[in-house]
Parts: sequence; C-alpha cells; structure tokens
Amino acid sequence: MENKIPYKIYLNEDEIPTQWYNVRADMATKPAPLLNPATGLPLTQQELEPIFCSELCKQELDNDTKWFDIPEEIQDFYKLYRPSPLVRAYFLEKALGTPAKIYYKFEGNNTSGSHKLNSAIAQAYYAKKQGLKGVTTETGAGQWGTALSMACSFFGLDCQVYMVKCSYEQKPFRREVMRTYGAQVTPSPSLTTNVGRKILAEHPDTTGSLGCAISEAVEAAVSQEGYRYVLGSVLNQVLLHQTIIGLEAKAAMDKYGIKPDIVIGCAGGGSNLGGLVSPFIGEKLRGENDYRVIAVEPASCPSFTRGKFAYDFCDTGMICPLAKMYTLGSQFIPSANHAGGLRFHGMSTILSQLYHDGLMEARAVEQTEVFEAATQFARVEGVLPAPESSHAIRVAIDEALKCKETGEEKTILFGLTGTGYFDLYAYEKFNTGKMSDVIPSDSVLEESFAKLPKMK
Amino acid sequence: MENKIPYKIYLNEDEIPTQWYNVRADMATKPAPLLNPATGLPLTQQELEPIFCSELCKQELDNDTKWFDIPEEIQDFYKLYRPSPLVRAYFLEKALGTPAKIYYKFEGNNTSGSHKLNSAIAQAYYAKKQGLKGVTTETGAGQWGTALSMACSFFGLDCQVYMVKCSYEQKPFRREVMRTYGAQVTPSPSLTTNVGRKILAEHPDTTGSLGCAISEAVEAAVSQEGYRYVLGSVLNQVLLHQTIIGLEAKAAMDKYGIKPDIVIGCAGGGSNLGGLVSPFIGEKLRGENDYRVIAVEPASCPSFTRGKFAYDFCDTGMICPLAKMYTLGSQFIPSANHAGGLRFHGMSTILSQLYHDGLMEARAVEQTEVFEAATQFARVEGVLPAPESSHAIRVAIDEALKCKETGEEKTILFGLTGTGYFDLYAYEKFNTGKMSDVIPSDSVLEESFAKLPKMK
Repeated sequence: MENKIPYKIYLNEDEIPTQWYNVRADMATKPAPLLNPATGLPLTQQELEPIFCSELCKQELDNDTKWFDIPEEIQDFYKLYRPSPLVRAYFLEKALGTPAKIYYKFEGNNTSGSHKLNSAIAQAYYAKKQGLKGVTTETGAGQWGTALSMACSFFGLDCQVYMVKCSYEQKPFRREVMRTYGAQVTPSPSLTTNVGRKILAEHPDTTGSLGCAISEAVEAAVSQEGYRYVLGSVLNQVLLHQTIIGLEAKAAMDKYGIKPDIVIGCAGGGSNLGGLVSPFIGEKLRGENDYRVIAVEPASCPSFTRGKFAYDFCDTGMICPLAKMYTLGSQFIPSANHAGGLRFHGMSTILSQLYHDGLMEARAVEQTEVFEAATQFARVEGVLPAPESSHAIRVAIDEALKCKETGEEKTILFGLTGTGYFDLYAYEKFNTGKMSDVIPSDSVLEESFAKLPKMK
Repeated sequence: MENKIPYKIYLNEDEIPTQWYNVRADMATKPAPLLNPATGLPLTQQELEPIFCSELCKQELDNDTKWFDIPEEIQDFYKLYRPSPLVRAYFLEKALGTPAKIYYKFEGNNTSGSHKLNSAIAQAYYAKKQGLKGVTTETGAGQWGTALSMACSFFGLDCQVYMVKCSYEQKPFRREVMRTYGAQVTPSPSLTTNVGRKILAEHPDTTGSLGCAISEAVEAAVSQEGYRYVLGSVLNQVLLHQTIIGLEAKAAMDKYGIKPDIVIGCAGGGSNLGGLVSPFIGEKLRGENDYRVIAVEPASCPSFTRGKFAYDFCDTGMICPLAKMYTLGSQFIPSANHAGGLRFHGMSTILSQLYHDGLMEARAVEQTEVFEAATQFARVEGVLPAPESSHAIRVAIDEALKCKETGEEKTILFGLTGTGYFDLYAYEKFNTGKMSDVIPSDSVLEESFAKLPKMK
C-alpha cells in the first residue's frame, strides 16, 4: 500500500484559513439578485435588516469583496473541531480495485454531525455582536437546528427552533441534543405563531412541512424584540462561510502537491457543495486551473438535472423572497427520501448561475444505489455516512470504477458532509430490503413548473 | 487566551505508537491469575484456547513481555481513526475560571463512538490470522458490539452479537449500525442456545441481562466449528490493546513538554482507564515520575470504593473463570444507571492490584452530578459526551475547581472515551429533571459479599 500520502491530512492549527472566499467576486455573470415578491425589485439592505442580522445582509448582497476576514472569535470556535481531516480513501480504492486516487474532506467530526456548524457559528456570532437576544430558525432532519443550538449556546444567545412535527416525533434524539444545548424546540405547526394557528385550524392533523416551519420561524423573529431569523443553506452568506471546507481541502492538497481532477459534492440547497467547490471554481473562473465539478442530487428531487432556471419562491408558503435558481417549483413536494437535507425544490443562486454557465456538471442518483455506496464505504473506511453525503460517495465510486475500466489514475475529491448516526431508520429500511424511491414523472414536473411565478 | 499549545494536538501518522505496553511487566506484585472454578487452579493456555484465540490467550497470560509489536494490518486500521486528538480544554478552563490546565484524550471520533475499537480490531485480526470463521460476543449498551462489527467487517469475519434484549428493543439504532456492518445481532436470551432456551422456558418474559448474554455468546463460540468468543473489557489482553490511548496521549504531551499532575479516567471493567493510565503508572512503578491517578466510578456500582478485593466470578451466571479483583459480588445487580458501560460488579485484575498497592485513587460520583458536568462540558467544548466518559469530566471539573480555590496551576489529563449520540434517552431524563440514582446500602453489599465464592 502506497504510504507517501498519509491516510489523514490535518492542517496545523495555524494553517486553518483566516478568510472566507466569495466566489461571486470572480464570476463574470453575477448570480441574479433576490427580489421582493411585492415589488419585483431587488431586495435592499434596508428591506433585509428586519429579518436578518445587519452584517449578514451585507455579506448576502456583496458580489465584489473577494475575501472576508473570519472574526477571531469564530476562528477560536473553529479550532474546537477544525481543521477537519482530508482523508485518503486507501481502503476504498483497494476494495474497488481502481487506479484512481480518492480523497474525501470529512466534516462529520463534531457533535452537530455535519458541516452546518461552519455557518451556524458565524451567524450566531454576528447576532451576538449586533446585541441581539436570540435567533429563530426551522429544522427538518435536525442537523441545522443542532448546529445552531451549539453555536447559540457558545455565545449565550437564545435559540428558538421550529422543528417539522413529524421529525420532532420521529427524531426525539435530535430534539434532545438541541435541548441539551439549551435550545427551545417547538414542533411545527405550533400554537405560538399566527401562521401556525391558522394552519392547525385548517389542518388539525398535519405533521408539518419545512415550508410551514420557515414561515413560523420568520414570524417569530420579526415579532419579538431583539430577534432575527437565520437559515442554514441556499443563501450567499451561508455559501461564503462554508468555503472554509474547500479552502482547507485545497490547502491540504497543495501541501502535498495533489491536484484533483474531479471534485464531487452532494447538492440540496447548496451550502456544502458551494463551500467545497468555490475555491476550485474560482481557479477555473480566473483561468488558472481546470477541474471537473459534479453536483449530485437525489433522483427524487432533481433541481439541477430536471429543474428550470427561473425566478421562484424559496419556500412553499411563498412568503420568502424570489430567487433565480434551478427549481422544481416551490409547490413541488419531493417523495419521502431519507436524505432530508437534499429535499429542497430549489438551489443556491450562486451555484445555479455557475451551473447555467457550464462551470459544473450535475447528476441525479437513486436512493437505493446511494445506500449501497454508503454501506460499502462504511465497511471499508469505517465512517457511517449521512444519507446526504452518500450521494457524493455514490458518484465518487462510479467515477473510480470508470478509471478502473480505462486505467486512468484520476484524482477524485469528494465532500463527506456528515455522519448517519441519526439516520439509522433509513439504514434499517435499506438493510431489510424495504427501501424504494419515487422519481417524479415529467407531467408532475410540468404541473409544478406551471405554478412558477410570472415575471415581468 | 494562551495560544502556544494548540487546541488539539494530533500526532503525525508516523508518530502513532507501534507497540502496546504491558504494565504487568513493571509490576512488582503481578495481578493474580484467573482460576478455573472447577479446579481452583490457574487457567492454562490449553484451557483458554477453546474459548479465546490462541494469540490472545498468550497475551492474557504474559506478565513479563513489556512491549508487544502492533501488527502492521492493525496499524493500518488504526490510521483510519487514529491518532485521536489530545485536546486542550481552553473553553472549559475559561468557563470554570480555573488556573488549572485541562487536557482530554478524545476517543469518540469513530463510528463505534468509543475507544472500544482499539481492542476490537486487534481481536478480530488475531481471529482472522488463526483462520477462524468468526467470533461471538455479547453487548449491553452496544458500544462494544458496534466496534466488533466494524472490525469483523474489515477483516471479512462473521460476527455474532448477543444483545441484551431490553437494549435490543430500546436501542434499535445501535442494532442497526451493527447490522449495517454485517453483524448478526440476536436479542438475548434467544432460542439459538441451550442456555437461552432454558432461561426462556423458566422466565418467558425476561428482558435479558449481560450475564445471560455472555453465557449465550460463550456457548455459541464453543459449539460452532471455527468460532471463538471475544470480550471488550476486564481482560489483560484488552487493557494491553487499549494502551494505545495512554501511549499516544503521553507522546503528544511529551512533544509539547507537558507533564500532567493528575490523570483521570472512568472505570467500568477497566479497559479505558487501564489503557489511559498504564504508561503513566509504568513510570511510577519504575520510579521515574509521579502522577496522581484517579479512577471514577458510578456511586450506584462502586467496585473500587466499596468493593472487596477477592476472587469472584466475572459473570452473573458463574460459568466464567474466577478473577481476583475489587468486586461487589457477581450476584450484585446495580441500579439502572445510564452509564451502561460502567455497570459491572468487578474490575480488571491489573487495575485491582494497582489500586490495592496504592498506585491509584478512586472516587464514586452520582449520576445527576455527572450529567451536570456533561452538559456544562458539551456547551463549552462542543462535544456531547457519553455518560460513561462524563464520570471523568465530573472529577476533572472538581479538581480544576479545587485549583481555583488554592490558585494552583495543576495540569489535568482525563480520558473522554466516547460520544453520547446513542444515549439521548439519558440526556432527556436529565433535561426534564427526571434523573435519579440508587446507591446500594451497606446491607445490600454485605448480602452480596456473603455470596462470594469460598476460596481454599
């Protein structure tokens, strides 16, 4: 077994990046602005500030500043769980019999279990700095809520999480982690908001939805003095914070003179994918280097591969701003795929523009083949991956197997966003042969596209 | 904030120890031998071999060889999750306002969630090398079973786990991780063994016990061609493998010129504690250095602090060998403490002898104060600790607070054996104020001591 490159490359603490990279600064075509659905005009800092922290609004709207300094307090917190390891998957390569060299950047070694903490701590920091009392958010699968609870606990901020009711009931352990970190977790829809009360009056037996939880969290933020709303994906600010992933991965590879041929990440709202690939795409945009970049999405929710590039609402409730993105339509309801973090109808506007401009490829994969890859990976590499992350594993394995056929020694880097310790119900389905997948028909998508907002 | 020592010290891959340390070689008084309950005579290699792998029997009986080479295949596997970080708990120090310097060796960054994998991979390796088909074991809380499943999957060995029925039902996720790694998990008592059938016939509604699961696993091992039984704690061989923890911790500290004043570990069967403290106690035994070493146990199962140093059965079923150890009596049933890994009536014979000879202290702590420490730690250090590990956190905090009173700048090292992701039911009890503890009365212990085997 080759031994020059260690199994795990850890940067030294003083090699952790101290700035986030804003890929928008290098984009010739900037991502389209968020629009106010009432006016159809781009949202201003002033319009955003009642909902989001001021500093985060600036980051959201800034298409020009290339590097943002990471505040020292955030750098200190990062040191609790970063640098995350860049792992050479020697055992997976051996199991596949491939000449490809496979690396993964592993973001699961923290209690939130995923990369979400990278942005949660940043958002909590800016809220604290602004003198706020607390923040509100929604959570589905629970990774974002957990990350935010940890971050708020660290800065002594109140944290109010609206958790989709069926998750609240099916994932009591996720809920309990949040509570241990001092968060108030409310099953959504709830009686604590107008929108929640309205929905419960109309649908007393509903088990909730992410769209509804978002609406409740936003209402809770704007109706309490000293609160703001925070979001774990999709937004430009979130992608900015998540570039710590790609910057670290690149620094670790550079240290050993490794250049990936292919960079692969799973795509839901785009926070992990954008964070991982931004520094690589930046080099493409600047003409310094070339990489193949592949976004992997579930076949049950194929925003990139089957969506339309159009302005659409970010939420089912149609109260959030309009974003120009690859979308399946805000009224599209994906089937109950176990990768809850990838069940979003739209996509980051940055990534949408990059994809539209041919800087990325995309691939949709089915759930069962994803879990086959997850299980193979777990058995040889030791890490039990999250269903979301396993989408990237699937395509990394597929690409490595192509190398086996062609004999090419390609270098593959993929993002392993998190662990599957709270997803064992999904593994049980797979282990007992009860897993299936529902891929939307063309007519279902056409029907959904027909409901896209009509733009002037 | 002091910054010379990084938050996390990772050894380089080539600095990971390549030998295990056998503290018995440095002990003036060796641990008493295991006795055959039928003959009252020390067990021989020949008597052990039908149950345990040959190489492991040798390690079990060898009181003289000071260093055992770690086979290359095991070293390779270690690199999947080792070196584990030695963390400087800067944020905990700050929260406590203590002049003490607190370090913890964190063994939770692997899918089994604990240090158990260090020995599981060694035991699986020797089984494979001996040409066996598989191994059997029991598991209660599930950490050991998970670790063994991962290790067996890696070497392509069959893995049969007897899981205490109430855990099997209450911890379906633990069961599912094992199944994902290809293990056969059977709720115990089961109809697959004579002893299981007998118990079920007598007690059809029993929810099982660790003692019963051990009996089933041993029967399954000896009644199948090509199988042996493996155990995750208590045994000398297990402590030997676990010295990788202490050796790494010591190497990391030496690298930065740090010398701990106090070394703290939680104590159940002794695998983590023995692994962490052996290299430090070795220096004490050789007169090279002095350290305070503190074993922490639950007040509900206080083997060291209230037990007798006597020969006793290792299992409730009284079929296993007799070991001379600190014991509460094999018939003692500890209350339903949430630190399942610490609910063992006895203790490693090595640690028992060291404690008897005054080389270690011991302290018993109550469950609620343990969870208070766990929650405080989680909120400032980010890691959600296992209930077992939190016993060590409790005493580390107590010692740090003493330093605050006296102004002493002591250096404290403790073992953080694992994460609490599968223990959230316990956290829920604590978070909702429903946690209590049952400390055995003197008369209960006297009654149990009266049943200790009469030795000639």
